[in-house]
Amino acid sequence: MDKIIADYIVRAGGAEIERIAREIAFEQTVEVPETLITSDTILENIVGQVVNIQPADNTASRFRVSIAFNAELANGQISQLLNLLFGNISIKNNIKLVDVTLPPSFVRRFRGPNFGINGVRQLCGVFDRPLLSTAIKPRGASHEAFARIAHDFALGGGDIVKDDHNLVDSDFEAFKSRVSRCQAAVQEANRTTGRNTLYFPYVLSPQDRLESYLDFVLSVGIRGVLLSPFLIGLDTVRTLAEAYPLVIMAHPTFTGTFFHDPDHGVAPGVLLGKLFRLIGCDISVFPNYGGRFSFTKEDCRIIQQHLQEPFGHLSPGLPAPAGGMRFENLAQMAEQYGPDAVFLIGGALLGDSDSLQASTEKFLDAITSLFPGHRHQNGNDSWQSACELPTFGTAEVLTHLPFQKDYSWAGRPASDYKSSQALPFQGVKRHELIGQHGERTRFDLRYFEIAPRGYSSLEKHIHTHAIICIRGKGELQINGEVIELKPFDIAYVPPLAVHQLRNHEQEPFGFFCIVDHDRDRPMKP
Amino acid sequence: MDKIIADYIVRAGGAEIERIAREIAFEQTVEVPETLITSDTILENIVGQVVNIQPADNTASRFRVSIAFNAELANGQISQLLNLLFGNISIKNNIKLVDVTLPPSFVRRFRGPNFGINGVRQLCGVFDRPLLSTAIKPRGASHEAFARIAHDFALGGGDIVKDDHNLVDSDFEAFKSRVSRCQAAVQEANRTTGRNTLYFPYVLSPQDRLESYLDFVLSVGIRGVLLSPFLIGLDTVRTLAEAYPLVIMAHPTFTGTFFHDPDHGVAPGVLLGKLFRLIGCDISVFPNYGGRFSFTKEDCRIIQQHLQEPFGHLSPGLPAPAGGMRFENLAQMAEQYGPDAVFLIGGALLGDSDSLQASTEKFLDAITSLFPGHRHQNGNDSWQSACELPTFGTAEVLTHLPFQKDYSWAGRPASDYKSSQALPFQGVKRHELIGQHGERTRFDLRYFEIAPRGYSSLEKHIHTHAIICIRGKGELQINGEVIELKPFDIAYVPPLAVHQLRNHEQEPFGFFCIVDHDRDRPMKP
Repeated sequence: MDKIIADYIVRAGGAEIERIAREIAFEQTVEVPETLITSDTILENIVGQVVNIQPADNTASRFRVSIAFNAELANGQISQLLNLLFGNISIKNNIKLVDVTLPPSFVRRFRGPNFGINGVRQLCGVFDRPLLSTAIKPRGASHEAFARIAHDFALGGGDIVKDDHNLVDSDFEAFKSRVSRCQAAVQEANRTTGRNTLYFPYVLSPQDRLESYLDFVLSVGIRGVLLSPFLIGLDTVRTLAEAYPLVIMAHPTFTGTFFHDPDHGVAPGVLLGKLFRLIGCDISVFPNYGGRFSFTKEDCRIIQQHLQEPFGHLSPGLPAPAGGMRFENLAQMAEQYGPDAVFLIGGALLGDSDSLQASTEKFLDAITSLFPGHRHQNGNDSWQSACELPTFGTAEVLTHLPFQKDYSWAGRPASDYKSSQALPFQGVKRHELIGQHGERTRFDLRYFEIAPRGYSSLEKHIHTHAIICIRGKGELQINGEVIELKPFDIAYVPPLAVHQLRNHEQEPFGFFCIVDHDRDRPMKP
Repeated sequence: MDKIIADYIVRAGGAEIERIAREIAFEQTVEVPETLITSDTILENIVGQVVNIQPADNTASRFRVSIAFNAELANGQISQLLNLLFGNISIKNNIKLVDVTLPPSFVRRFRGPNFGINGVRQLCGVFDRPLLSTAIKPRGASHEAFARIAHDFALGGGDIVKDDHNLVDSDFEAFKSRVSRCQAAVQEANRTTGRNTLYFPYVLSPQDRLESYLDFVLSVGIRGVLLSPFLIGLDTVRTLAEAYPLVIMAHPTFTGTFFHDPDHGVAPGVLLGKLFRLIGCDISVFPNYGGRFSFTKEDCRIIQQHLQEPFGHLSPGLPAPAGGMRFENLAQMAEQYGPDAVFLIGGALLGDSDSLQASTEKFLDAITSLFPGHRHQNGNDSWQSACELPTFGTAEVLTHLPFQKDYSWAGRPASDYKSSQALPFQGVKRHELIGQHGERTRFDLRYFEIAPRGYSSLEKHIHTHAIICIRGKGELQINGEVIELKPFDIAYVPPLAVHQLRNHEQEPFGFFCIVDHDRDRPMKP
């Protein structure tokens, strides 16, 4: 049986640590007290097994507890993994998840970063130094000001300019407008420099619109986005990363309560390193040590380690330390992170001089000088994404379908008239009005129109029809009888009645037809 | 400018509290130091305004800081609201978000609970006592054992039996099999008792399959689900609640790091009460005080307060305290929570006797005796919908219903106009055309006519309407919006949309209305 091994630091007295460790193992799996589990199968296969307890330091009050969980309990899902590792016990205290070891059978369910270090480097055309990134801000400035930041940073040779994660637009149109403008500004600068600076917009929309936003992003040639996994959900990020051939840069907003207490929560390396990589983040942004947040140098090192150490088939990702990074400590940063990192420098770059282009050049020169093996390439050579653009349907629930004078309804175009001689019907067109676009009806409302001398197929089926004539005149043949229909006449076609609708007039014959949504296929009589 | 007021308790010395308060206001909006913002417009419209600082207690080291944010910064989105209130500062320390006041312009963007207290009570048919709920567990037991718990609890008269949140299945087929079995078990017991016990399965699937799971849940007649907002994302819950006419019961797994530190995080009442209600949770599960988690009595009271106090147009929700609830403290629970709560009792109920039916009866008797005014009803009180006018005409299947010039159909006479002042509708008549006379449709086709100045009842229901205007003009009010309808305009009324049809013209307003044949009763909004 494959196991997931979770390592917790638990603060407790030595006399109670074994009991507490077992309580965690029960709470996270069966959620009932030990005494209520009498089945050996459940005890052996479902309840977590405490496999190791050892002092975490020399205080005698902190222990490292390793619990082995049956890997099947995580169901190959990141959401359920979070629940298994730290769901209910998040509401307890003095338990810190500090590491997790995932078996290959679990890791195989994930694709990991779409691009990874190499892929991102190829997109940028930069191979042997850290990438330089900045943020477009502040919210409230004009689109023009945003575009200028993007443009000038690109002109200075920066690698990735991303939106600040506070840049959320009033609606999709505003997003399109702002993002198009920034992307155009970067493209314009790229034409000047011959380089390939990337622009990553921040995407935060209503959950059911995220795909529309990403469709748009792809459509204007953007190669990556900034997402906030803890706002939109980790498995949402995974889903999007699998569906869209985009670089995913992850922002840590709203994650902090997992980290601030040294005795409770989840270690930053696990969340921002290992798990973000698992769900497909190519780049993980986190607060650099020494800045205005409280991550330690060691926290930062472990995040990078989790992003880059061997991890099944998953590509390694890039740490993007941010905050408190100044010109003066670039050497220190270079020593800490080495070349495979993204230096995300906001305020220090924007505030360094009046010219963002000049500041960017200055910082880039400094970074480059710290990595003398640097070779600079243009473009992304022969690399290609295996992913193709996904296709999405346009079905949409509409509350109002205004009638148009030509007997059509906005948003519900007709199928064409068909007239092939091979078909058993002639001159029929159909509008699917309600029921086939995601509406929660158990019936479908359609409008049919039969051209002069046209007819529907002679057929029968188990499902029924309700027909309401609204245009012209026509006839319903039903079980050999003929019913003339004029506007607002209604007809009911019972199960298995052999029927056909025909138009012998000079004008179109139009009618609503209501049928069960789930229905059998028509048969020849 | 509408404001969102966030109240934080900040631990800091009196000399630095003003600086820290301002830093929060900048960090959460423009994310740059104060000195870098030179634009007055941004300072006034974007940067948060510290509107109040006062001692939070008499320690001189904890202050209540109120910051007013421009409500537009939250963009009407829950994800962005979380970011605005506590995104980056989550990674700081000594800041606790303890309350938030949202302006009507923001709250209006949300629908809130689909059912609320009244709706859930109507589904259960229980009106004046707390609802009794239990959990199906433990993971690893057989589907037969799960179904038996569901069945016996229902037989004992329990109200809601939900899955444990560890019950995640290996795949969709396993989910279908398990859930169908539990639902069938509850339905069988309901046939015996004549009551209406509800079964809420836990839904946690890959993010892109959630809708398939919920489609299935609806298709087998289930009326609610258990979801974990912090695993799947709060805005995902909102999206699902808006798309599915289901009772949403929220589980607090993975939320705990917001709560455990009294000096940092978010107060439980804000997350599990106010925000869960905003995104559409009808029932919020949380750890009861005195159990194995660390919520205080006051925490629990405030969660309930946030679920039930007036909050724009949002229906109130039900607190579901869980954990540590025993037979002996039911009276204490009754005093704490009053009748409008769900008592979620797992271990104490399952462990009380060998017969879950007997234990359930015993607990229910005790709860009922604590609320002597209890009246047990099936369904709705005296409120009447215009859809419930008596049906006239022959109970005979007719194939042809010729239209008559006075907007009537042979064989299908109208119900009378009703005009009693006591009714919530006015001047409405109805023809049942197809579906109520023995036709084998799964939908009903009706023609309604509303006299000048008449209106239908303002109502909502799970079933949908398709409306086709054919006479005069009228308006459809739907979720506060007004749609004008003229002949052949079509409208779709989605599940639980609050709607009313009105005629302000001098002529009758007539329309076909198509509904599912099997449908729920309309509710007051």
